[in-house]
Amino acid sequence: MTRARTLPPGDAPVRQEGLRHLNLGLVFRHILSAGDRPISRTELVELTGLTKPTVSRIVDDLVLGQLIAEAAPVHGGGAGRPRVGLTLSRQGPAGLGLDIRGDHLAACVVDLTGTVRHLSFSPPIRPGRRPKTILTELATMAREATAAVADEGLTVVGGMVSVPGPVAERSVVKFAPQQGWRDVDAGTLLRTALDDLPIAVDNEANLAALGELYASDEDLRNFAYVSGELDLGAGLVLNGQLLRGARGWSGELGHVTVFPNGRACPCGANGCLQTYASVEAIFGPGSVDGPATIVTRADAGSKRTLAALDAAGTALGIALSDLVNLLDMDTILLGGSYSLLSSWLVDNIQAELSRRVLSSRWSTVAVRPAMLGPDAAVIGAALTVIEDVRQNPSGWLAHNSL
Amino acid sequence: MTRARTLPPGDAPVRQEGLRHLNLGLVFRHILSAGDRPISRTELVELTGLTKPTVSRIVDDLVLGQLIAEAAPVHGGGAGRPRVGLTLSRQGPAGLGLDIRGDHLAACVVDLTGTVRHLSFSPPIRPGRRPKTILTELATMAREATAAVADEGLTVVGGMVSVPGPVAERSVVKFAPQQGWRDVDAGTLLRTALDDLPIAVDNEANLAALGELYASDEDLRNFAYVSGELDLGAGLVLNGQLLRGARGWSGELGHVTVFPNGRACPCGANGCLQTYASVEAIFGPGSVDGPATIVTRADAGSKRTLAALDAAGTALGIALSDLVNLLDMDTILLGGSYSLLSSWLVDNIQAELSRRVLSSRWSTVAVRPAMLGPDAAVIGAALTVIEDVRQNPSGWLAHNSL
Repeated sequence: MTRARTLPPGDAPVRQEGLRHLNLGLVFRHILSAGDRPISRTELVELTGLTKPTVSRIVDDLVLGQLIAEAAPVHGGGAGRPRVGLTLSRQGPAGLGLDIRGDHLAACVVDLTGTVRHLSFSPPIRPGRRPKTILTELATMAREATAAVADEGLTVVGGMVSVPGPVAERSVVKFAPQQGWRDVDAGTLLRTALDDLPIAVDNEANLAALGELYASDEDLRNFAYVSGELDLGAGLVLNGQLLRGARGWSGELGHVTVFPNGRACPCGANGCLQTYASVEAIFGPGSVDGPATIVTRADAGSKRTLAALDAAGTALGIALSDLVNLLDMDTILLGGSYSLLSSWLVDNIQAELSRRVLSSRWSTVAVRPAMLGPDAAVIGAALTVIEDVRQNPSGWLAHNSL
Repeated sequence: MTRARTLPPGDAPVRQEGLRHLNLGLVFRHILSAGDRPISRTELVELTGLTKPTVSRIVDDLVLGQLIAEAAPVHGGGAGRPRVGLTLSRQGPAGLGLDIRGDHLAACVVDLTGTVRHLSFSPPIRPGRRPKTILTELATMAREATAAVADEGLTVVGGMVSVPGPVAERSVVKFAPQQGWRDVDAGTLLRTALDDLPIAVDNEANLAALGELYASDEDLRNFAYVSGELDLGAGLVLNGQLLRGARGWSGELGHVTVFPNGRACPCGANGCLQTYASVEAIFGPGSVDGPATIVTRADAGSKRTLAALDAAGTALGIALSDLVNLLDMDTILLGGSYSLLSSWLVDNIQAELSRRVLSSRWSTVAVRPAMLGPDAAVIGAALTVIEDVRQNPSGWLAHNSL
């Protein structure tokens, strides 16, 4: 029953020269984990167990590479030299997020601390424009964003594009029904337009989920981010890792079957969640400024709107019960438009969860609005780029020949 | 937006003394990856890039610790000394699997190569026996299995218990409706009965899925194992890792909603998959030798049985479509009883998948019977124990003071 196994990549012997790389990563992770609090060289020696000269050499490399910076000196209570604290640099590498939505485009730049340093939006997009036209406009926004943050000492090291549909090979939009896109290689087009800047493409719900994960101050490690945009999807995080699935097409919550013989879905099936719980399903077809109008009507006590919200909450609850039965998430974040509508949805969702989830007999699931609001996907996209630098500081230094 | 982060455990500086551990693991993984083929010291030097004395020292440690053994010498074509190949030891550490099923108990021992060296079953269990009585009997079977393989030079290093229900803290059976168990700490009871042998407890479908993963010769990395026992569950594997969920209660496929206002389920909800597709649902209540009888009747063309199989296949297809939409598995393995019934189920499952899974427009999902058959869970349980040794050979050597 023994089988031949493929060794994981990079499974090479560890020799002396690998230590510098590992120890640099170790020092950098301690600076990262201190958050906004400046940390001293002495503390780093204590925390890492490395020698003082080793820590000093690594700190020098990190400062030179603009990954960290010296904060203003802090005078201790006693005598002696003032302590110089180290924090993440607010200059140096930056991540670019781009977002293609139903009605407009967005661009965002974050620095190494995760702070949003630039956020811009296009005018509304007229329907029916060709992919190439939209992507050319997005490339212009990317160049403007890059130029704007360059004035503040930031260098955009890569970009991530959020699209409302499944994505293949981190580049090709397989299917975006709102845009009428099929197999559009947005990544290659944008890379070419942006002088070979590294660009990847991912699904909107995935990026919004990663945004919540990276930006959260809490211990948020097992959750589903439910995207309440015109297309309903979910970003799934277990043990702090995004679940992409075998081919990257996970999270199609909008096509989970709620009523097998129910309403016809544009996808060709019947009874998909999307036909009961999307903003369009709640408000009626043809709406663009849906959620705000729904809130106004619900506040005014419109019976039709309240009934639609009621039905949407129940349908969401049935589909989310399937998700929790299968994946045992402990938290559901209602994102995008749902974050505005959550007070009308949560009770029905919780009623279905407690009725249909087996573990609800001894356990609960938290259901609450997401944190980043309607710009979660574009901020999350930018954060994924900077997270790569945070996870692999040596790679960034090597790239800059430091 | 920067947050304080918890460092992963063991995030210590890498120093010289850690290299021996890492290099031993490297050499051992190359021997593992050769499968049944003996591998020479010379090959290991080439494959690892380590020096000959280092490889020799590590090989000596591994032989002494009974993790590897020298195969019979092979004479090369030319002159010179015969090459002595190294393979995994068929003596030394062994893993114990134990299984609590609806109608009987099972015990299994596998060696380091993954070969089953012992497999035994209890007589049928009378219904209504107390957990302690059943666990005492299981401990007796464990002792007999351990004694039987000791005669062949094998040392049982730990045990894993398969139970038909969700498990907390790798020890406590939260809920096993067939047995009428609630919050039974099977792990602690068995550890005490077996002189503190390390014992963990896990769900049947999880262990069967791990069994398929470890025993497969193919590149099986993204699949759902569907357990067709009296209780319907799934073991979910993505990127070669079992998905346990936030609290360990993932894979409750039997309670995915198929028809929201449908049949009442003993869990309290309506329309759970289990009420349409369990062996009991297909055959009628009170059956114990269900699947064999269903096969006989279906072969004989019984209209009632064929209609029940038809409905079960459709219900399975609806629930599995939800699973694939959410998790993008590329393979579904029909396990346990379903492996016998698969020829009557696959067509309807595929029909629903192609209708309801969004990515089915450009992609497919393979649906086929599982490999290990009805003993998948107990074999998988034993394999998880030995997999721990395979992944951490230094730990085993240290444990034996080598």
